[in-house]
Amino acid sequence: MSKVRVHMMISADGYVAGPNQAPDKPFGDIPEGFLRWVFELRSFRQDHGMEGGKDGPSSDVLGETSANLGATIIGRNMFGGGTGPWPEPAWDGWWGENPPYHTSVFVITHHPRAPLVMQGGTTFHFVTAGIESALDQARVAAGERDIRIGGGANVVNQYLAAGLIDEIELHVVPFILGGGARLFDNIGSPPPELEVIRVVPSPEATHIKYRVIRD
Amino acid sequence: MSKVRVHMMISADGYVAGPNQAPDKPFGDIPEGFLRWVFELRSFRQDHGMEGGKDGPSSDVLGETSANLGATIIGRNMFGGGTGPWPEPAWDGWWGENPPYHTSVFVITHHPRAPLVMQGGTTFHFVTAGIESALDQARVAAGERDIRIGGGANVVNQYLAAGLIDEIELHVVPFILGGGARLFDNIGSPPPELEVIRVVPSPEATHIKYRVIRD
Repeated sequence: MSKVRVHMMISADGYVAGPNQAPDKPFGDIPEGFLRWVFELRSFRQDHGMEGGKDGPSSDVLGETSANLGATIIGRNMFGGGTGPWPEPAWDGWWGENPPYHTSVFVITHHPRAPLVMQGGTTFHFVTAGIESALDQARVAAGERDIRIGGGANVVNQYLAAGLIDEIELHVVPFILGGGARLFDNIGSPPPELEVIRVVPSPEATHIKYRVIRD
Repeated sequence: MSKVRVHMMISADGYVAGPNQAPDKPFGDIPEGFLRWVFELRSFRQDHGMEGGKDGPSSDVLGETSANLGATIIGRNMFGGGTGPWPEPAWDGWWGENPPYHTSVFVITHHPRAPLVMQGGTTFHFVTAGIESALDQARVAAGERDIRIGGGANVVNQYLAAGLIDEIELHVVPFILGGGARLFDNIGSPPPELEVIRVVPSPEATHIKYRVIRD
């Protein structure tokens, strides 16, 4: 059965990005170590076409993110290209010629654009009809496989508010950001209940997977 | 070597109390399950003079809180009695005749009052000279044993901002509160760095202990 999953890094104080986010700085102001541990993992490097890297529980957990994955949904900020109509020459995303998604990726935006076929199985589709339309299209692309809501926080929160998320895995990193983008913000009242499915400890992050209980 | 420790329940979205906190409702609006699991633990029941209860990793972790503890510091809200001068008849706290602290407890308040000797080893001392004075007095009382900053969030954040905390253990409960009192709020910039000391998983809570790195 296809699941809708979220996997996000989050600080000890509940932020998934730091203060002063901007179109050219999607993570805002963060200490270098907040992301560095991910770049060093074997599974992350493999998804990004790089060799080597560190094995261990964090690599295993991050590697699961792309297992049985059939489609990805992200917000415009995660694709890039500013906030208005698409710039000329057209912005092809942060992710290089061979993006790490290796699935159809549905980009939620106000500005229509033709699909963009990249190397390695990634095709970006630009969805202007809102989050439910993006999920419908992702379900068709994914079939029996899972769908990842990739972020940012605002997109995940919209899907949470709509009751459309099955699982949330938080990679709780030992940093305090003190401000920025908050997960679980403005998701309606009462908020959904959670159930702990699994916890994987590591020095880099505490990986906590929750099932979102949907009535 | 005496340590200054924090042990707090915190929601998946980073709140240690829910919205609408009030003098007679120190945890604000929270779902019943947010606290219930604690009341059921053997170690908690033991500290509160009750028999029975549930064994397991969460009981063990909560039981450590009072091990080697020599003094406790809490804010006025955790002691109770409103926010102004002490009421008549004098408020003796939320905690009954035999409070669960079993140490000297330094209550930070703007309103002086004579010490209050309770059963079971708890004596409340009322400190009007601020957080550093409360810690100095707690160090004298604790000797080689540890000092717990009991809360609420505002008191813990003041001690964090002052660089006076050694360890923080978060009992991350699988609930979304959506608002309320936040730990790590307004603690200055840059915030202190954290190091994961230990993680204990359980269905009730993910217990993450951090060392606070002090320069």
